[in-house]
Amino acid sequence: MTPPVPSHAPSHAPASAAPLADPRAGAAVKAADRAHVFHSWSAQELIDPLAVAGAEGAYFWDYEGNRYLDFTSGLVFTNIGYQHPTVVAAIQEQAARLTTFAPAFALDVRSEAARLIAARTPGDLDKIFFTNGGADAVEHALRMARLHTGRPKVLSAYRSYHGGTTTAINVTGDPRRWASDSGTAGVVHFWTPFLYRSPFYASTEAEECARALEHLEATIAFEGPETVAAVILETVPGTAGIMMPPPGYLAGVREICDRHGIVFVLDEVMAGFGRTGEWFAADHFDVVPDLLTFAKGVNSGYVPLGGVAISAAIAETFATRPYPGGLTYSGHPLACAAAVATLRVMEDEKVVEHAAHIGATVLGPGLRDLAERHPSVGEVRGTGVFWALDLVRDRETREPLVPYNATGEANAPMAAFAAACKRNGLWPFVNMNRTHAVPACNVTEAEAKEGLAALDVALGVADEYTVQRRAAGGER
Amino acid sequence: MTPPVPSHAPSHAPASAAPLADPRAGAAVKAADRAHVFHSWSAQELIDPLAVAGAEGAYFWDYEGNRYLDFTSGLVFTNIGYQHPTVVAAIQEQAARLTTFAPAFALDVRSEAARLIAARTPGDLDKIFFTNGGADAVEHALRMARLHTGRPKVLSAYRSYHGGTTTAINVTGDPRRWASDSGTAGVVHFWTPFLYRSPFYASTEAEECARALEHLEATIAFEGPETVAAVILETVPGTAGIMMPPPGYLAGVREICDRHGIVFVLDEVMAGFGRTGEWFAADHFDVVPDLLTFAKGVNSGYVPLGGVAISAAIAETFATRPYPGGLTYSGHPLACAAAVATLRVMEDEKVVEHAAHIGATVLGPGLRDLAERHPSVGEVRGTGVFWALDLVRDRETREPLVPYNATGEANAPMAAFAAACKRNGLWPFVNMNRTHAVPACNVTEAEAKEGLAALDVALGVADEYTVQRRAAGGER
Repeated sequence: MTPPVPSHAPSHAPASAAPLADPRAGAAVKAADRAHVFHSWSAQELIDPLAVAGAEGAYFWDYEGNRYLDFTSGLVFTNIGYQHPTVVAAIQEQAARLTTFAPAFALDVRSEAARLIAARTPGDLDKIFFTNGGADAVEHALRMARLHTGRPKVLSAYRSYHGGTTTAINVTGDPRRWASDSGTAGVVHFWTPFLYRSPFYASTEAEECARALEHLEATIAFEGPETVAAVILETVPGTAGIMMPPPGYLAGVREICDRHGIVFVLDEVMAGFGRTGEWFAADHFDVVPDLLTFAKGVNSGYVPLGGVAISAAIAETFATRPYPGGLTYSGHPLACAAAVATLRVMEDEKVVEHAAHIGATVLGPGLRDLAERHPSVGEVRGTGVFWALDLVRDRETREPLVPYNATGEANAPMAAFAAACKRNGLWPFVNMNRTHAVPACNVTEAEAKEGLAALDVALGVADEYTVQRRAAGGER
Repeated sequence: MTPPVPSHAPSHAPASAAPLADPRAGAAVKAADRAHVFHSWSAQELIDPLAVAGAEGAYFWDYEGNRYLDFTSGLVFTNIGYQHPTVVAAIQEQAARLTTFAPAFALDVRSEAARLIAARTPGDLDKIFFTNGGADAVEHALRMARLHTGRPKVLSAYRSYHGGTTTAINVTGDPRRWASDSGTAGVVHFWTPFLYRSPFYASTEAEECARALEHLEATIAFEGPETVAAVILETVPGTAGIMMPPPGYLAGVREICDRHGIVFVLDEVMAGFGRTGEWFAADHFDVVPDLLTFAKGVNSGYVPLGGVAISAAIAETFATRPYPGGLTYSGHPLACAAAVATLRVMEDEKVVEHAAHIGATVLGPGLRDLAERHPSVGEVRGTGVFWALDLVRDRETREPLVPYNATGEANAPMAAFAAACKRNGLWPFVNMNRTHAVPACNVTEAEAKEGLAALDVALGVADEYTVQRRAAGGER
């Protein structure tokens, strides 16, 4: 079966926010990009980056007059959408006042960003170490854990992503790790709950949870509890598939960590700051980690910023002993100003509550309705504006629509699905055999419905690759 | 000998740019900082961060009405000084246009930043991979080198700093590495030329150079040339002491790397973008590395940005094979806009030429004059606006004024020196037994002279800790 040829011709006319088409300017931007920009995670000559002319709210547009509803939020970071005027103004004001300053000083905007973040993080996570993004937040969190415990090992999950620098990629549990994995010492991967594709042969959420905790306990026992510095988990795994942990799992991990003196790190780089319909995903589960990493949503990526929220006990470790880590732009004033403004906007405009509401009333029901009607949808998972559709060749066997880490022809079904989304004005998040519906937290009901309608059409394309059982007695 | 008590009371009255004193506001900023900000490289309860109210050009000021001439350029990054109006305006304009966007797209400002950087980097370093700062630039450069060669090891220098994330800190050659060094595989440190404290017992620059190259060649031979992916060096080591490599050294390293198929990485995070009086320090030595890392000066740190400039041969390795690395904010539009504006300002205002001129006519001669008159100065090293004074207890033995990695009472002489600088309105860069004179590249002649005058007074304090030989026959 030959997939449809990808094309960038969405059905939507450019809105008033989009400028007139200027293909010549787009071609120049593209040519300069191809001449000099080396792109992330890519074979440089096999990519064809879309030249983007602008963005606003939940949309962006190219130089051809095409406008796209962004169901990716960039890389799941523009939680307040593009170009929020209040945050843009705050950046402009801070730029005029003091755009940069070294980290070893006290600055009003740095203090205020730390205060506002600490006020929202759970429990006693009241000290904020600022980094440039999520990867270095994970680097520093795990360094703190190793020094706090004096132990060497870190346990992390298969089906996870924690960032691109050495330690962050080593604890990652997806194929992006493989090329950087030689010589890694002290990282052990374990399996986490995922009932739809259960590593534990469980048939209920309760059974999956109990077995996952037994598996972690056994792994720690065989690694040697006194050698384990930290367990790091994404509270809700993001790019790996948005698997909501079953009730009791994270509390169980917390209890295991406490019993063995292990630091519990929750990575909320993607799930934090409203995406799940709470300030932090941990809030759904009433669990307080010892360290919490963040980035992305903290200021919607308007200026690069990440960080670690630190418990009182771990901060105490570094009260009179120097913490051996740092970076030039720690607590960068412009990034902190964007965070202060973003958090105020989220508070004032009830963005977190809105994300919960749109998930409960539009995205959740709408995606479940699509699943009813499209045999390619194996499972719908998520909450808030954080949803995954697990696409399958066969609902009965749950065989993924494409194999793990497929490329080229093997990935044709997902490529065809993605192309169909784009033809219908939706920019989709696609990873492996999944598409994620991860629009801005302040996406409107109308926009969410527009996205669902485009997904409806594109899932029709995905359906063509599935096993069709006319008398579908065995299907869910 | 009891050092003078540090005090923040410089002799300079606040200039018109500085606001009136507002100690109450400063106390509030400080209190919020102490409550919630976790600082880099610090014992959190033993630090006393100065609350800074503003900055402009070569100066910053606190809430007490004190203004300081910044001879540190932050952490050696504000190469165009604080709050350059052209770059501030460019940031404001880009914020209004498109403050953030994901890395997998072509954007005008991202393309233009890459083009302008590639136009200035030496040789065929024409592809730019953008990161958030210097540490992740080093991470990615070394990953590229390992994958390009298929070899595991990296050779780096003692007396170096390459960043705070795992691989970057592992290749670092200063005490900041120690706490993060367990389990490091594949990093080998070697010695680089430093005639004043020669590791090779040499007595001339030519001898130092020849022996340093023999030492590197022997180290590679004993490590196994076919196991070595990369040699990474700061072109001119920065925080480690601003040791200008002797003529022929870098060309010699280049030749050794070529002979063994080793990737030569130059780290220009601190030395690049004008600091040495050339666009890149490599330009002084007519050497072209395979990879060049940058950050800091590329946009004077106005928005976090770093990157790797990549040779054609290494880019070719990733033409059809995906490069397994990336980050959410790679090529961040706001950071790129700040780079485009900074590079234009540096060009238009001849900032690089100015740095060379001020080094040759004011800072160099002025610092050498101080050395003549102060027995605590063992050596003056540097070029452009990149100078080190190597302070000693005894000029004859060259014993450092404080021991390596001294703290507390052992560091009292340097603490007294730093306090004297601050009392005289100069914020000094101090590391180990050295002070570095690293003001903005566009520091004026009058400002440079003001800094020299303050150093003159503070070196008088350092002199009190030195061995005084009245009949100084043995001194240089």
